[in-house]
Amino acid sequence: MPVRIVLSHPSHPGNIGAAARALKTMGFGELALVNPRFFPDPDATAMAAGAADVLERASVHASLEAALADCTLAAGFSARGRDLSHPPMPLREAAPELAAAAASGRVALVFGNETSGLSNEELLRCQRLVTIPANPAYSSLNLAAAVQVACYELAAGAGTHPLPPAGGGEPATGEDVQGFLAHMESAVHESGYVDPENPGRFMERMRRLFARAGLERSEVRVLRGMLAAFERRMRR
Amino acid sequence: MPVRIVLSHPSHPGNIGAAARALKTMGFGELALVNPRFFPDPDATAMAAGAADVLERASVHASLEAALADCTLAAGFSARGRDLSHPPMPLREAAPELAAAAASGRVALVFGNETSGLSNEELLRCQRLVTIPANPAYSSLNLAAAVQVACYELAAGAGTHPLPPAGGGEPATGEDVQGFLAHMESAVHESGYVDPENPGRFMERMRRLFARAGLERSEVRVLRGMLAAFERRMRR
Repeated sequence: MPVRIVLSHPSHPGNIGAAARALKTMGFGELALVNPRFFPDPDATAMAAGAADVLERASVHASLEAALADCTLAAGFSARGRDLSHPPMPLREAAPELAAAAASGRVALVFGNETSGLSNEELLRCQRLVTIPANPAYSSLNLAAAVQVACYELAAGAGTHPLPPAGGGEPATGEDVQGFLAHMESAVHESGYVDPENPGRFMERMRRLFARAGLERSEVRVLRGMLAAFERRMRR
Repeated sequence: MPVRIVLSHPSHPGNIGAAARALKTMGFGELALVNPRFFPDPDATAMAAGAADVLERASVHASLEAALADCTLAAGFSARGRDLSHPPMPLREAAPELAAAAASGRVALVFGNETSGLSNEELLRCQRLVTIPANPAYSSLNLAAAVQVACYELAAGAGTHPLPPAGGGEPATGEDVQGFLAHMESAVHESGYVDPENPGRFMERMRRLFARAGLERSEVRVLRGMLAAFERRMRR
């Protein structure tokens, strides 16, 4: 299954190593790090135990966007309820869709910093928001423990859950979606609808809406075609 | 749920603390230790983070028998297939019975030493033998990671924890969505992107996309604002 575990801004290298071990025990192999505080690091290697190969192959990125560029579906993990329009799904409910999506593209499981979690901006780069149901009085799973549970659910659960029927076309990649949103932003600036000096929350809403929708490649193509037609007419 | 996590002969106090944290995040509170190598220990306390109360209440026993004395059902966790008369069950299959048994008595989840696991003698003290399905090439879950997954399966699988409240605004009505789609249709006609005489499937795709997204009222408002701005510029 092409599943990439993404750790954004991890503070403790030991957690990176423990996460590598966790994902390898569940049969996965791809680790991506966004701005790790320390990496490589002897603590990471020590905690990886027999998963040093996962650390050696790990990719390091300057932004979450870059880490997701070739992913068709990204699930952001969050312990807290967020004021976002896509409601968090419990891991068990989300897993069948994630496993099914991994049959036709690369799926990312995205985890935030140990203390602060994923920022709202980072969550908006993800098409799904997933929660590991936990003790309301103490929901603080260790980072590697969260990775372990998520990978367990995806791998072990995939065998027992019937997969949803595969309808729909080829999913858009992160790069496709970013390209479309950048195009939209430039068009709304040109139209005068959004003032670049004082943009308000329009683009944030659009990012959220289209993340929730889970765009297909062909939809991105026709939406960009529509924007290009508006631009041509505005320029006449 | 009266569930006791039993660690038999743990070598590393850090793992005891991490296990305490793991079980507390899943809503459990009882930890029993059989002949821990070091306990109490500052490493255990450090790794427990906000679960120091679990360590303080932990019971220490000289034998597994003593730790299980008041339990009605004990499940021994093992990564390896064993030459024992009761076959190992995958965790997911075992969980419903364990959760059901916890309704009428105390259930124990028993984990062995980090290196050697549970001895055959210890496994024979358990009524069930449970396996966490793992990568055949690397099945070595960290002790606390195994506790985390087992407790997750028991608690989350049983639907014990409420989900955090979802954000999200007022959903758009059917009328709102139809109004928006009609507005979009008229704008793409005006732009020349869609020929009213030969419209193709553009609007059908948009209908499907926005149905899937589940639009909010405020999103409809800003999308229509954007279309109106395009229209004004096209008419200049």
